[in-house]
Amino acid sequence: MLEERIRLAPLRDRIVTADEAASLIHDGMTVGMSGFGAAGDCKVVPLALAERARKHSLRITLMTGASVGHEVDGVLAEAGAIERRMPFQSDRTLRKQINAGEAMFIDLHLSEMAEQLRDGHLGPVDVAVIEAVAVGEAGIVPTMSVGNSAVFAALAKQVIVEINLEMPLGLEGLHDVYVPRARPDREPLALTSAAQRIGLPFIPLDPQKIAAIVVTRKGDSPNKVLPPDSDTTLIAGHLSGFLANEVRAGRLGPSLRPLQAGVGSIANAVLHGLVDSGFRGLRMYSEVLQDGAIELIDTGCVDFACASAIMLSSEYQKRFFEGLERYRSRVLLRPQEVSNHPEVIRRLGVIAVNTALECDIYGNVNSTHVGGTHMMNGIGGSGDFARNAYLSVFVTKSLAKDGDISSIVPMVSHVDHIGQDVDVIVTEHGLADLRGLAPRERAQQIIAHCADPSYRDVLRDYVTKAAARGGHTPHLIEEALAWHARYRERGSMRADQTVRAPSQALTEPA
Amino acid sequence: MLEERIRLAPLRDRIVTADEAASLIHDGMTVGMSGFGAAGDCKVVPLALAERARKHSLRITLMTGASVGHEVDGVLAEAGAIERRMPFQSDRTLRKQINAGEAMFIDLHLSEMAEQLRDGHLGPVDVAVIEAVAVGEAGIVPTMSVGNSAVFAALAKQVIVEINLEMPLGLEGLHDVYVPRARPDREPLALTSAAQRIGLPFIPLDPQKIAAIVVTRKGDSPNKVLPPDSDTTLIAGHLSGFLANEVRAGRLGPSLRPLQAGVGSIANAVLHGLVDSGFRGLRMYSEVLQDGAIELIDTGCVDFACASAIMLSSEYQKRFFEGLERYRSRVLLRPQEVSNHPEVIRRLGVIAVNTALECDIYGNVNSTHVGGTHMMNGIGGSGDFARNAYLSVFVTKSLAKDGDISSIVPMVSHVDHIGQDVDVIVTEHGLADLRGLAPRERAQQIIAHCADPSYRDVLRDYVTKAAARGGHTPHLIEEALAWHARYRERGSMRADQTVRAPSQALTEPA
Repeated sequence: MLEERIRLAPLRDRIVTADEAASLIHDGMTVGMSGFGAAGDCKVVPLALAERARKHSLRITLMTGASVGHEVDGVLAEAGAIERRMPFQSDRTLRKQINAGEAMFIDLHLSEMAEQLRDGHLGPVDVAVIEAVAVGEAGIVPTMSVGNSAVFAALAKQVIVEINLEMPLGLEGLHDVYVPRARPDREPLALTSAAQRIGLPFIPLDPQKIAAIVVTRKGDSPNKVLPPDSDTTLIAGHLSGFLANEVRAGRLGPSLRPLQAGVGSIANAVLHGLVDSGFRGLRMYSEVLQDGAIELIDTGCVDFACASAIMLSSEYQKRFFEGLERYRSRVLLRPQEVSNHPEVIRRLGVIAVNTALECDIYGNVNSTHVGGTHMMNGIGGSGDFARNAYLSVFVTKSLAKDGDISSIVPMVSHVDHIGQDVDVIVTEHGLADLRGLAPRERAQQIIAHCADPSYRDVLRDYVTKAAARGGHTPHLIEEALAWHARYRERGSMRADQTVRAPSQALTEPA
Repeated sequence: MLEERIRLAPLRDRIVTADEAASLIHDGMTVGMSGFGAAGDCKVVPLALAERARKHSLRITLMTGASVGHEVDGVLAEAGAIERRMPFQSDRTLRKQINAGEAMFIDLHLSEMAEQLRDGHLGPVDVAVIEAVAVGEAGIVPTMSVGNSAVFAALAKQVIVEINLEMPLGLEGLHDVYVPRARPDREPLALTSAAQRIGLPFIPLDPQKIAAIVVTRKGDSPNKVLPPDSDTTLIAGHLSGFLANEVRAGRLGPSLRPLQAGVGSIANAVLHGLVDSGFRGLRMYSEVLQDGAIELIDTGCVDFACASAIMLSSEYQKRFFEGLERYRSRVLLRPQEVSNHPEVIRRLGVIAVNTALECDIYGNVNSTHVGGTHMMNGIGGSGDFARNAYLSVFVTKSLAKDGDISSIVPMVSHVDHIGQDVDVIVTEHGLADLRGLAPRERAQQIIAHCADPSYRDVLRDYVTKAAARGGHTPHLIEEALAWHARYRERGSMRADQTVRAPSQALTEPA
């Protein structure tokens, strides 16, 4: 059976325990691990490495595709093993260390990390650890994500392969691994359609570089997606209605443009919402496929979906594995450098749907920093998509913390996406179409359609007072962040709120 | 002689006065005019239009390539003719109207406007007014810029051509006009080198659409560039030294990567600085070529330069026109959609040098909004280049207004470029290399190397206090914009400054 998985006899001699593999990793090293959105991450070497770190106070620079499961980031962070981390994370323990300044987090555009590695901006990669369905003479067949694994394999001095027997051999053929040449000899990425193949079905790797192979049976951490609620259903409805109207206006065809949906429950609900929308023949060009994407394929709404990872709940992963032969012609996984590449996103004219933490009245979006200071997860691919999209949509509920936080504020406390990169904002109350509008016009639309009614008057009052002072983007600069300061101090953004006891947790991401 | 310029006999019957041409433009129309950085803008139809606007209270939506000369934006604004304006401007009169909320300014990424027009996001173009060297059966030979003229010509219902006899016929052949197909049938842009041609030497146009031709002899407004001073010379020196070090470290070859330099005196001085640096065989892939670019070509430092416009001082324009045959093989003008295209910038690995109005300690950059509210010019192409560059450099003097403004602040009052898009910051004091650093590390570098010494202690104090509260990007949210509020109120960002009389002009862009 291992012959099917480890297809070169001499490689089978390199099978070791996870502990032995982890012993290749030393203090101060830079380690590139597979995994994107807790899909295709390594399962046992990180655990062994955490163990080793506890004994030897080892600290590494950890690079991945995007977030990885708790048993990578969480366990390594608990062991104090993460000195530096890039380009994305979503782990509670690691997040605490990042916000305490104990772990240095370098929050990068997901498309750009491979470039920066090749360019030498991020230093050399010592060891790559890559989960695989199989390994052979020509390279590695990855599992549920491609992420940055191809660039790690190319640049690392040594590679550790985790063969995961839980990952069906049928995954082979699902990947399209195209690795751009280093600049200045770069060719255009030939992709002109979401479904096109331009690469190899495996990650090319000289087997000489494989220092160790570990065999495991541990599955991906299941992805927890909250089911649609009344607010996210309303958001999905507003967006579907808007898109239907764009079709009626002749700006879009009935199969729209390739869709990207960010990670998370709201974006997932938006996809669910499209099922009932009557759209057919849609395609997805995204970074992560969640349950909603599988749902859209199953209902015939989506013809084809590509991304860098498939991150599913247990139920949907079971469905996906059982139906692999059916999904094979409809799903493709690419390196994140390709799935998120500005070149391709712009060319295909992607409709990008991402989640905002907060938006301001001028259409700037914060998607990372709670209270302007505390990192939630990272910018991820949202900037890759929002800047280059045909249409860049941000979705958020209008309120948080029982209404003590308004997601529509005078000025965002941190900017991830500038107004130019935000075409449409949707909350449960409605949709603001910002295309072709100046800031003062944007403010009217966002307040009227997106803000919770209980905050609209104060927002209008702010705009009126600010506009009286003049400016292209009017602000009362001394009050622009007062809502955030008030929330921090008193537990509510509302000016008329009775004072609450300040809480330690106020700036802690949920 | 006109036969050389108007090469189709029936078109010569369409020669009219500027007044007659302007009478084709009516109240409420959208007019797309040639011009990028006051190069290749129309000279007489706008003046006639302003006259017409005064008589008939006509207001239009004015689209251009980028900024245009005062005799377009300024004169039209004075006549109250500009209701909406995009995608960029730099005129004092228009700026006042924008900041007063009298003219709606839509500040766009320069690469993106053509896309948005084709996609129908910005509404139809009624009339295009395009300055030309010549016009013939196949189209228009543009003058000192291409800008958005090709997309205006393609989309406008009617086209007015201004034949400018001051623009030498020798300019023909200097342009490479490639117009991408509308999505979803887009092909890759085939450019793999700054010097490559992929288009036509003219703007394609069905002569049937030419409604009027006006002949003029009025030259471009000369570009005023301040000569390098001791600060900009220091900035140029820091950057040259850094680049030389990158070559020594093996990350760059001796001819670097294609260079982009933003508009303005500091970026121009940086180019001047490279002349003495010993670099040879450089190429420019930029949006505007200023005097510095011509200087670099003349000294043999630069082999080839392409952009969307050539915007020169009178002296350099004379030199350029006289040496046209010499420059012909070294200079190329492209549509701004191509010169600024994310796809090409990323592929070529451009080194981008742009000017910041202010930077914060975490590396976010404000390049547009004085005091967070008042528009200076616009984001222009800086976002196109900074996000996609191999290396994104921002330059600024560390102080403004005799030291009452620090260009390095705790939090920028407006964000145009997020930390992810800023690799290097340079002031006269030094250079901060931010690659691969987390926000807390960035702050140390920026304060130590870029801030004026007189502001360093207060900045360090801010960081220390903020870090004690925790956060990935520590801030004292209630004080983050206090420096700007203090400047607005008291005329100085310095906390210890004696109070000055508040002045109306404090938030007025200079």
